[in-house]
Amino acid sequence: MSTDLMPNRYRPGEVELPRREAALIARRDNVLGSSYRLQYRKPVHFVRGEGMWLYDPDGRAYLDFYNNVPSLGHCHREVNAAMAEQAGRISANTRYLEPKLIDYAERLVETFPVEIDHVVFTCTGSESNDLALRIARLDSGNEGVIVSAYAYHGTSAAVAAVSPNLGDAVKLSPNVRMVSLPGPQGVPEAQAPDYFEAQVRAAIFDLNRRGIGVAALLIDSIFSSDGVWIDPPGFIAGGVAAVREAGGLFIADEVQPGFGRTGVHMWGFERHNVVPDLVTLGKPMGNGFPIGAVVGRSAPMDKFGTTARYSNTFAGNTMGIATADAVLTILQRDRIPDNALAMGRRLRAGLEDIAQRHDAIRAIRNAGLFFGIDMGLETAPPAQRQAQALDVVNTMRDDGVLISTTGANEDTLKVRPPLVCQAEHVDLFLASLECALARLAG
Amino acid sequence: MSTDLMPNRYRPGEVELPRREAALIARRDNVLGSSYRLQYRKPVHFVRGEGMWLYDPDGRAYLDFYNNVPSLGHCHREVNAAMAEQAGRISANTRYLEPKLIDYAERLVETFPVEIDHVVFTCTGSESNDLALRIARLDSGNEGVIVSAYAYHGTSAAVAAVSPNLGDAVKLSPNVRMVSLPGPQGVPEAQAPDYFEAQVRAAIFDLNRRGIGVAALLIDSIFSSDGVWIDPPGFIAGGVAAVREAGGLFIADEVQPGFGRTGVHMWGFERHNVVPDLVTLGKPMGNGFPIGAVVGRSAPMDKFGTTARYSNTFAGNTMGIATADAVLTILQRDRIPDNALAMGRRLRAGLEDIAQRHDAIRAIRNAGLFFGIDMGLETAPPAQRQAQALDVVNTMRDDGVLISTTGANEDTLKVRPPLVCQAEHVDLFLASLECALARLAG
Repeated sequence: MSTDLMPNRYRPGEVELPRREAALIARRDNVLGSSYRLQYRKPVHFVRGEGMWLYDPDGRAYLDFYNNVPSLGHCHREVNAAMAEQAGRISANTRYLEPKLIDYAERLVETFPVEIDHVVFTCTGSESNDLALRIARLDSGNEGVIVSAYAYHGTSAAVAAVSPNLGDAVKLSPNVRMVSLPGPQGVPEAQAPDYFEAQVRAAIFDLNRRGIGVAALLIDSIFSSDGVWIDPPGFIAGGVAAVREAGGLFIADEVQPGFGRTGVHMWGFERHNVVPDLVTLGKPMGNGFPIGAVVGRSAPMDKFGTTARYSNTFAGNTMGIATADAVLTILQRDRIPDNALAMGRRLRAGLEDIAQRHDAIRAIRNAGLFFGIDMGLETAPPAQRQAQALDVVNTMRDDGVLISTTGANEDTLKVRPPLVCQAEHVDLFLASLECALARLAG
Repeated sequence: MSTDLMPNRYRPGEVELPRREAALIARRDNVLGSSYRLQYRKPVHFVRGEGMWLYDPDGRAYLDFYNNVPSLGHCHREVNAAMAEQAGRISANTRYLEPKLIDYAERLVETFPVEIDHVVFTCTGSESNDLALRIARLDSGNEGVIVSAYAYHGTSAAVAAVSPNLGDAVKLSPNVRMVSLPGPQGVPEAQAPDYFEAQVRAAIFDLNRRGIGVAALLIDSIFSSDGVWIDPPGFIAGGVAAVREAGGLFIADEVQPGFGRTGVHMWGFERHNVVPDLVTLGKPMGNGFPIGAVVGRSAPMDKFGTTARYSNTFAGNTMGIATADAVLTILQRDRIPDNALAMGRRLRAGLEDIAQRHDAIRAIRNAGLFFGIDMGLETAPPAQRQAQALDVVNTMRDDGVLISTTGANEDTLKVRPPLVCQAEHVDLFLASLECALARLAG
């Protein structure tokens, strides 16, 4: 595991900055303190966004192949118009009768398998995962949570405590167990389902033996922070069944894969042909407006709702609902998941072509428009592979293309453009990547 | 303590509803499930908001004396214009350099005593309290949290576990201790500081004896969910000092009292002449846009920030910052806290006048425009007092004026109008209250 938890960042003194940026950073550090990090060796500063593009104060355009919140593109006019229209009319809370809240809830639930028929709104993906854990713990009567080895599920105390990705400074819960994934362990695909199930069963055994029991298997179906390990489809099914046998729930964290990113499917768990008990939503749900949700089966959600009051001031207010409703309308009307699939295929083909010419690409994995591209030779030391990945990311940033890194060693390029990207954007990205690789080799 | 955690709510079958509302509620229950409650015996449904007023589908106007999120009034044009303008330009995240983020952070911090100079943004008050607890626990190395007897601090797992207000179904943390407040215990004001300090010291003693230690005293300076117990100013100071002696932090939950509600002061803790270590913000910060913050002293915040990465996707995005910046500008430019003080005085004088004619008013407490009005005779059984409060609230709702109840017995009227209310609104409210009291007596 990388000791630097965000290696792709600005470090004072590493690069020379224009006076304007240096002065801003000094003021920023003074008032925001050390919790905040700036991305890239040389920080970026944008004053305008439109679709796939971000513009700096000098008018230079950057192609965004990284931000997965504005899935419909930056500053989407139709979404913003829906938000502004609603803000000017009324933004009622959920304790008042509001037909739009009900309409949207019904539309959202319809995008799920029939077993999943309830929704509770939140404001962020972290709040969604936090609430899902509360529901699973109340429903099961158990406390244990099983996650992947390098999982990240959010920022609240309860969720950070089951997020090993946050590193040693954030104490893990005594009730969490991490399971290895078959992919990063080099397990052949044919054995992946058995391997994963065995890992989960071992975790359940240990949790039961200590009287903790298992409340939930909480996973993101593309394992994004582990480095994007998505294959083979269905490999999680045995682990899911084992958790259910033990009285726990399966929570699918769809904050990153959800809303069409994996292509064809609206939800990432559909690739694995499993139906979760609870599903957590966030990031792209409002294309930037803070809104999330827990969607799930009625039994655990009603058991929670009838006893533990859940009231979230902003969540489900009409302004957020109108915004999310516009996003869902556009996703469906414009067949955005189909575009994610088609552009994902084009991007994958281009990457495979480049990989033939550049040894630095070790492996390519993707589901739709979420890519992990491993950098560096298998035989190279981890630090060297990470340095190569960071060099590529920052060379591309200087070239006006935005991506970053992920994975346990942070040597995997993380590529997840807005879902509205077109062939021309894919080709620009590929050209920039090939230039960066050529410079790396030179 | 009331066994019904939200007594002022709709119960199926209690009142006859028009077919339109009945059908909506059936659909709502079907998809949202049991976590959601509708306020008032007969639910309200609004289609338009403007300033102090909400309008139902038949065009009937309701005077809002309850909602403390839209402090500047419903659908504020200037705030909404700032939000829409920014949404159309760019909404960058905090890992990009953004001068507006820094400008607003500096302006916000300037409204606090000089010791408080750092800010971290969140999306909700719950996230603010959750993060503040994480900071306090990391800084102190302790786990214990001291709260008031009937405190409510939010919805995340960690915060719900220190919110006794949520009732028996939500398990309290083994590390939380509740302290009684002098007011509800009938302690004379002169003895209130000593009483509170003794309560806090006893909690510290118990936490230390069990090896838990004290991480924080977490209180809302007007104790809103305990029933609005605000006097005498300064009564919390000895308790705050005791917690600091024991190595814990003082966290002021300003989600309800903050941003000028208490009149004159911007922050509720200023009434008590104490300077917190951490301050948590939420509700009115964006006049309805989901934004919150933890503001505090640099030592604990930097200790947390340098070790535990805190990254909150939506928090501090430029759209939220532009909205909050407009709110702060208007609060300061239009001297909104002064208006809260003046209108609070007018409302208090009117209530005292009414109380002379109506025994049903047992006590009146307020700080600025946050009022608690106890209903029912001291000698009446608690259930009867609660019924009187609910009758008044629902009679006023039918009369087109919105308030609700609070306190351990839910027999205290909770009155907290938007801070822009004017004399005419105060007088309308008073007239409606007097009518409701007359009907109660009749």
